[in-house]
Amino acid sequence: MMKKIIEIGNEDKINNFRLKIEGKKPLFICVIGNTETAKIPGISAAGAKSEITDYTPAADVEYLYYGKCKCLEGVPITPEGIPTPGLITKAALDLANIPRLIVSGGVNVFPQAPYIDLGGEAGGDISKEKAVKDPIKIFKNAKILGKNLSFFTDYLVIGESIAGGTTTALGMLLSMGYDVSDKISSSLAINPIQLKLESIDSGMKAKKLSRGDFKNEPFKAIEFFGDPMQPAHAGIAIGAASRIPVILAGGTQMTAILAIINILNPEVLENIAIGTTRWILNDQKTDLEGIVAEVSPKVPILAANLFFDEMRFPGLRAYENGMVKEGVGAGGAVIACVLSSKNQISMIDICKRIEKDYETITTLKQV
Amino acid sequence: MMKKIIEIGNEDKINNFRLKIEGKKPLFICVIGNTETAKIPGISAAGAKSEITDYTPAADVEYLYYGKCKCLEGVPITPEGIPTPGLITKAALDLANIPRLIVSGGVNVFPQAPYIDLGGEAGGDISKEKAVKDPIKIFKNAKILGKNLSFFTDYLVIGESIAGGTTTALGMLLSMGYDVSDKISSSLAINPIQLKLESIDSGMKAKKLSRGDFKNEPFKAIEFFGDPMQPAHAGIAIGAASRIPVILAGGTQMTAILAIINILNPEVLENIAIGTTRWILNDQKTDLEGIVAEVSPKVPILAANLFFDEMRFPGLRAYENGMVKEGVGAGGAVIACVLSSKNQISMIDICKRIEKDYETITTLKQV
Repeated sequence: MMKKIIEIGNEDKINNFRLKIEGKKPLFICVIGNTETAKIPGISAAGAKSEITDYTPAADVEYLYYGKCKCLEGVPITPEGIPTPGLITKAALDLANIPRLIVSGGVNVFPQAPYIDLGGEAGGDISKEKAVKDPIKIFKNAKILGKNLSFFTDYLVIGESIAGGTTTALGMLLSMGYDVSDKISSSLAINPIQLKLESIDSGMKAKKLSRGDFKNEPFKAIEFFGDPMQPAHAGIAIGAASRIPVILAGGTQMTAILAIINILNPEVLENIAIGTTRWILNDQKTDLEGIVAEVSPKVPILAANLFFDEMRFPGLRAYENGMVKEGVGAGGAVIACVLSSKNQISMIDICKRIEKDYETITTLKQV
Repeated sequence: MMKKIIEIGNEDKINNFRLKIEGKKPLFICVIGNTETAKIPGISAAGAKSEITDYTPAADVEYLYYGKCKCLEGVPITPEGIPTPGLITKAALDLANIPRLIVSGGVNVFPQAPYIDLGGEAGGDISKEKAVKDPIKIFKNAKILGKNLSFFTDYLVIGESIAGGTTTALGMLLSMGYDVSDKISSSLAINPIQLKLESIDSGMKAKKLSRGDFKNEPFKAIEFFGDPMQPAHAGIAIGAASRIPVILAGGTQMTAILAIINILNPEVLENIAIGTTRWILNDQKTDLEGIVAEVSPKVPILAANLFFDEMRFPGLRAYENGMVKEGVGAGGAVIACVLSSKNQISMIDICKRIEKDYETITTLKQV
């Protein structure tokens, strides 16, 4: 039988982490944020039009709660019409009855669903202005939230939804001196990496800064080149991980979170794993393993071994062509679904549920 | 030995409820709100000056998280200098390691701590204007939050902090036709009941409404005479109580919540109890038992049997003179502390901790 979860890293560390979470009850958190960076033409797939990227995170989490979006019609789609990975996330969470909370690091569009506010504001365009107003404030609020949550769940799975997030992750990591410019992923099938690097380099020039200027200074890196999701995500993870395991659920953006944790609280790293999808690992242009090796080599990577090639709908089969790949914590949610069910829920169960949900939402849209 | 918890109601129902929660792990929630009603001169003790009442809820929950307030110096006090019951709440929660979440129904002053936003706005002065803009929206968001929370805690204890809240509870109940004008409590030692009734009657006149006009219509009652805490509180309770027990933690304000639940989802009432303090039961001018008998007679009342007469500080001994009495879910927090510790934590432990915390904050203030 095909493995449900692909494992990368030290075998003992992986087994140790899996043992801590298998059969246990997780809480899923989706951290949302907005950044003007997403509006640089061509940079993000999260939202068919650049003006609409502000709505994507709110719509994603509304979908997680209600099975439909409230702030926009239909569900978020890429310019090519591929639906949000939130579809995967919701199907996995619903199948395993996993509860979910929404946390805002700073947004322009507020979700029409209950969300935890950390006092942050939406971020600026890293190519020309400051990225995040007060990352330490967001981080501190997030940390105390994480600590509180650690008392009432067995482990956390923390995903994200922020259009432009791979660009700000890249900017943040480059400013910290990590050489990852050829390793970061994109929600687009053809990664606009040159555009990302040009935007970051413009920003460096405008702010009279250079790559590596913020070595060991994650808050400075966030302030100038990151996004408001990052301090919220890292804060929750650090606040919780001193007591319970935490899965950072996402693609290469999670290495930016790892970089923050690695500087601020390396002692909690043994309670941390990255949870992602096979599509991220399969992408020739992405090197998640390589960035983790550079940033924090001991952290294991788990990847949901999802296959969409037999899906009935082309919008879903497109994931096999490298579209979208990950987001809204999809990979981590699938991993948590499988492990919390003690392997009772199969990948086929999850795929069937995604297919059914896709049918429902596309029907809804037509009405 | 003196009973730690006073019980009122049907013995079987009480035993049944206690059995469901004894030794189990609770989550404490404080629902905050602001209403212009609190600024009617003389109506509220929550905040030494009427202009400052907007700050009281934010300050209360900041204290629960940090042991000090951020939006104001010191801690909230009454006009007579008596400290917030949040002192009791925090001591009880800390002793039993009970996690806490903050939920905003609608405020003017946002806490500098993580809080869950339900999309509500601060409320109007019930003596002259609409009380709550969109109670159904707040309620719906709260209900889905409550449902989610029910998956990761054994039971909920839901307190409140809203200056002016006993007046809006009275207004809301009167507009629903409950004859409770001589039964509602106050945070002031001398209950300004005439002032409350005059304010409500002015409001009835201004809005061309009469007592009882909103029989069986809790949302209308909230919209015209309630406050934004109410739909948030009731929504969380209803969302959670179909799966887990819920303690409505407060004084007579909780009967307004009970009235909402009783109309909308009476089937969950068997999972509901009121948690309060001895000081509320002892108040000759308050008849909590009487209102519960009128609104929803089957719901048991538990009361923390706290005695402050041997406290070292006059500010705390004042509770024995009927000052403050309850708030920030103090009674419910003490009950949860005692029961979750399987009676290992005594009332003396709790009182000593309150005394110690009081000393710390008064020292902090002087610095």
